[in-house]
Amino acid sequence: MRYQLYYWPTIQGRGEYVRLALEEAGADYTDVARGKGGMGAMMKMMDVHKGTPPFAPPFLEAGKLVIGQTANILLYLGARHGLAPKPDAGKLWVHQLQLTITDFVMEIHDTHHPLGPSLYYEDQKAPAKKRTEEFWKSRVPKYLGYFEDLVAANGGAFVTGRRATYVDLSLFQIVEGLRYAFPNRMRGFEKKVPRLLELHDRIAERPNIKAYLASERRIPFNEDGIFRRYKALDL
Amino acid sequence: MRYQLYYWPTIQGRGEYVRLALEEAGADYTDVARGKGGMGAMMKMMDVHKGTPPFAPPFLEAGKLVIGQTANILLYLGARHGLAPKPDAGKLWVHQLQLTITDFVMEIHDTHHPLGPSLYYEDQKAPAKKRTEEFWKSRVPKYLGYFEDLVAANGGAFVTGRRATYVDLSLFQIVEGLRYAFPNRMRGFEKKVPRLLELHDRIAERPNIKAYLASERRIPFNEDGIFRRYKALDL
Repeated sequence: MRYQLYYWPTIQGRGEYVRLALEEAGADYTDVARGKGGMGAMMKMMDVHKGTPPFAPPFLEAGKLVIGQTANILLYLGARHGLAPKPDAGKLWVHQLQLTITDFVMEIHDTHHPLGPSLYYEDQKAPAKKRTEEFWKSRVPKYLGYFEDLVAANGGAFVTGRRATYVDLSLFQIVEGLRYAFPNRMRGFEKKVPRLLELHDRIAERPNIKAYLASERRIPFNEDGIFRRYKALDL
Repeated sequence: MRYQLYYWPTIQGRGEYVRLALEEAGADYTDVARGKGGMGAMMKMMDVHKGTPPFAPPFLEAGKLVIGQTANILLYLGARHGLAPKPDAGKLWVHQLQLTITDFVMEIHDTHHPLGPSLYYEDQKAPAKKRTEEFWKSRVPKYLGYFEDLVAANGGAFVTGRRATYVDLSLFQIVEGLRYAFPNRMRGFEKKVPRLLELHDRIAERPNIKAYLASERRIPFNEDGIFRRYKALDL
């Protein structure tokens, strides 16, 4: 089955967690909105009068299914491509971790959009600075410390044990993104999460991920996505 | 099996979506932190060195399982208590809608905490006012309009069709909460979502929910939860 992934064509954003899973799985997929007429096709799929319309991209067409919400797409893909444990208990645990990453991603987004997604960054620079300060003071240590401790408690290879799951792919992306958006702050912080950095490197070396990162399918970071490099917000 | 629910004992908060599902299901459960020694027991469960430690409350102990993240708990309970469709496609669809509610709840929280959860409301009153303005101008219409359209498209009884799911219980709570936190703004908005209000009333009349709402198990709204009534943020 060939998947159709629908996401904004010029950013990594939330779609990137799905792209990484599809790439690691070696799945056959089209990144629809990056092709000709793709944006129109994506908008049409969001028509609320048909089937199971998603609230927002990303969403995945898989045969007759249309699945929205990043973590929900990963729940589906994880079970089909060996990117999550098979028993229900393991499935729920990995999904729980992904939902914690979802919360963190929302907080990362809010560093440059504390007044909400409907205003430009340029209209909220002062509160963005304040929120970013708090983010690095209390939220980054809490979230990354949690995952660092889990890696340690589970033996050091991946977050949930010896096998990589979609959560490990997402944590790779979190480290990449924080390094891009806050190079100075992240440099100062990295010594506190050595195992997470090792996990990041281990993911980057997996053949399918390595090939993806070197390809044109990987959109470079930019200031329209979740991770934005604004000098005023770094140190 | 008797469930153990772990959540902050003095607020509805995110735990309320789980409480509503347990009550509707007529499930046997203990709201642990509201009992003697319960807060200590909750903190102990969050020790990262044991099993599957949650990042934050709420979490549910179900036999040997410890399940965190509100939507994940509902995914589990929905399948076991007839609060979600049985086929995978329906399960994913209902979960997707719950994750959209999760996003909305985060945005509701951010109306009084735009600079992040680590500062007090009193330290962020001006940005809170601005964010609340944007929230009512663009986010409430977008989220509630989406669910209103879904109820209409599916025949008017519940969001996904003829049977109530945990998503309908959560939408009941959203309407209750917005009415509590923003009585004036909500009064002005309600005419735009008549079907959602009917759904709210339909849920409120279900015997188990009705009994729960009249009981002491239902904690009253207050200014420590997600929905807070601050005069400066209403109209």
